[in-house]
Amino acid sequence: MSPQPDLPEPAHPNIDSMLSRKFGKEVANYFSGSPLNRVSFLRPDHAFLSQALKHPSATFLAFQNLEPLISSPSTLAPLKFSEVEPIIGKDPFEKTEEDVIKEYNSEAYIPQVVFLGLDERKESGEDGEGFDYKGRYKGRPWFAVDVTPVKSVKEAAEGLIKKLTERGLDFSKGRMNLSLSAQEAAIYAEARHLLDWNARNPFCAACGYPTLSINGGFKRTCPPKDVAPSITQSDRPPCATRTGISNLSFPRTDPTVIMAVVSADGQKILLGRQKRWPQYWYSTLAGFLEPAESVEEAVRREVWEESGIHLGRVVIHSTQPWPYPANLMIGAIGQAIPGGEEIHLGHDAELEDAKWFTAEEVREALRVGTSGLGEAAGSEYKEGGLRLPPKTAIANQLMWAVVNGFASGAPMI
Amino acid sequence: MSPQPDLPEPAHPNIDSMLSRKFGKEVANYFSGSPLNRVSFLRPDHAFLSQALKHPSATFLAFQNLEPLISSPSTLAPLKFSEVEPIIGKDPFEKTEEDVIKEYNSEAYIPQVVFLGLDERKESGEDGEGFDYKGRYKGRPWFAVDVTPVKSVKEAAEGLIKKLTERGLDFSKGRMNLSLSAQEAAIYAEARHLLDWNARNPFCAACGYPTLSINGGFKRTCPPKDVAPSITQSDRPPCATRTGISNLSFPRTDPTVIMAVVSADGQKILLGRQKRWPQYWYSTLAGFLEPAESVEEAVRREVWEESGIHLGRVVIHSTQPWPYPANLMIGAIGQAIPGGEEIHLGHDAELEDAKWFTAEEVREALRVGTSGLGEAAGSEYKEGGLRLPPKTAIANQLMWAVVNGFASGAPMI
Ligand SMILES: [Zn+2]
Ligand SMILES: [Zn+2]
Repeated sequence: MSPQPDLPEPAHPNIDSMLSRKFGKEVANYFSGSPLNRVSFLRPDHAFLSQALKHPSATFLAFQNLEPLISSPSTLAPLKFSEVEPIIGKDPFEKTEEDVIKEYNSEAYIPQVVFLGLDERKESGEDGEGFDYKGRYKGRPWFAVDVTPVKSVKEAAEGLIKKLTERGLDFSKGRMNLSLSAQEAAIYAEARHLLDWNARNPFCAACGYPTLSINGGFKRTCPPKDVAPSITQSDRPPCATRTGISNLSFPRTDPTVIMAVVSADGQKILLGRQKRWPQYWYSTLAGFLEPAESVEEAVRREVWEESGIHLGRVVIHSTQPWPYPANLMIGAIGQAIPGGEEIHLGHDAELEDAKWFTAEEVREALRVGTSGLGEAAGSEYKEGGLRLPPKTAIANQLMWAVVNGFASGAPMI
Repeated sequence: MSPQPDLPEPAHPNIDSMLSRKFGKEVANYFSGSPLNRVSFLRPDHAFLSQALKHPSATFLAFQNLEPLISSPSTLAPLKFSEVEPIIGKDPFEKTEEDVIKEYNSEAYIPQVVFLGLDERKESGEDGEGFDYKGRYKGRPWFAVDVTPVKSVKEAAEGLIKKLTERGLDFSKGRMNLSLSAQEAAIYAEARHLLDWNARNPFCAACGYPTLSINGGFKRTCPPKDVAPSITQSDRPPCATRTGISNLSFPRTDPTVIMAVVSADGQKILLGRQKRWPQYWYSTLAGFLEPAESVEEAVRREVWEESGIHLGRVVIHSTQPWPYPANLMIGAIGQAIPGGEEIHLGHDAELEDAKWFTAEEVREALRVGTSGLGEAAGSEYKEGGLRLPPKTAIANQLMWAVVNGFASGAPMI
């Protein structure tokens, strides 16, 4: 069993602000709490990206087929520019975006580079002078780089990977094996989400032609020309994404609702299980938010569709980025209406079972029965007892909030 | 000035539940509060869709270029099946999805039909017997239909539109002119979001080939074959969206954060303005959530990028669907940290101005200075006073919450 990662600290834990007094401490879920300042407005500025890339403190997370380079399941293994240069070239940000779009060649393979942000932690200056752009934007620049050995970078990437392997480094083998610290997990999540989005969307959904990654990996544009040698007509047809701003040019994030459901009398909590889960394992219900639903409506719809239960009031608890591939988990607590608590699994075929549990059962399972999906429960767990997701899952945080008190209030159950 | 629409009622306003006692009444924003049960799990069932479509109570919202058919700016004008039949045909759901995919012809124009849900309101049975599927799913079926006169439906659609015009009906002229009641607004939002998504995504972002709308308009699939006469090779290359579930096949919703910012001492509220807005008009800051950010992080990043202000604690207030084209507005309240209140507009070029206002100024402006963007303020408004968005905007609800009390608590300012 890999060590259980710590949860991130809320951004400003020591500020006894009015909102904290009123609503309690902010819950910071795993994959949030990034130490990077994304300076998103600097991404179209090629001079900024170029200087950041070449600064001695610049840090590169290498990925192969969306798996990060690690030195152990709990530690990322960042590289220096000189190590990735054989793959990404001397300066992928040498030219303005305008020029890059003008010279677009759909047959040239460009390994994906993503600018993740500036690391503002004090220790980030350890490589001598920290990076400083225009006297205002400081910190160690972080990038993600796709070093998968394909097409024109096949040889260079294979060479790099061989060297890394000799140093004892390797790419992660699936997310179940990763157990990063809170801040590394947040950086990894940003990198993975962006690399996946770029890889998943090579074509324009509006016109069907191939697109080009710009803005440090945060935008894909549909160039009006393609100078690829085999293409006889370099002008491409008009595309709706070129007139005005189109959401299709920007990364997609899918809002997902996940909810702890409390009975009308506040004494029980509803959990469900999917067939493929280990025996005795349950969790909160969850599902995708649909077009033109509020979060509160999506929670009520999903709970009714999956379990037949009718909810009244819904309260949003906290949120969690989930980069598999592109989710925003929105955690909520909902309460059944009197008379609306009968379980019916026949609407949707999603769940194998759903059941009302007492607060005491859930409290005990949170103490002894949590683990990652592929892992064994702790040593105090007794066969047959309820098993639950680990505290890196927002489901765990929601259950904890219900049985141990939500925000500043007394326990709800 | 069009009449100000009422806000939707929360789903179960009369239930004095534990969550309501603890957190106050749920805020239901405009465009939420739909009376339709989407029965999403029935969408792949062509027999269900076919029966729903042909039931005498079936209701069709016609759209031309994403503008709904209305009888007045505050009333949708639904049609009967017999009226849209010349455009959509006798039964667009006659065949199983399997067969429809097998017979896919990229050159055939299929006018978009979207199944919106079953209307469970009592008055929905007014057309005789209500619709009933398998003794369990009841209510008047609602559909949206694109009747834009193009390609193979040009003549039929022009004929329909001529008849409708003679009856005094017309398509809306831009969203600024719409002022629908709360429940109609929610139905319209669902229809518009889905019609826009289908129209905006005719091609597969994974392989570049054209896609086909299925699941009653809630899914676009990338067929493995294309029997179009002009295409010599009917087998298409492999596509990643065909192996396993891909988010690219499902509608996109873009999470957006919008936030009322309170000063560290809780005495002031930050508002900003864009250049293109009317004079004296301000609103809360807003921006898109980025990949791998929690809502709380996105709020802090956006506020710093747009105004230079550093936030501590962030609390989520409520959410609002916003179908222009595909947003989920997540409303939050954030508090500046002591020493982090200096305004700097130089990071991002988004805002023309940002300013701290007193609670009294905002309270007064909420009373006399609100209106739609293109409209005049009320009669009590005095030139030079602060102007704010109407109560259909979540921005208005957030400001109201800050100056008049958030949830069940006392006023925050
Ligand atoms: Zn395009
Ligand atoms: Zn495809």
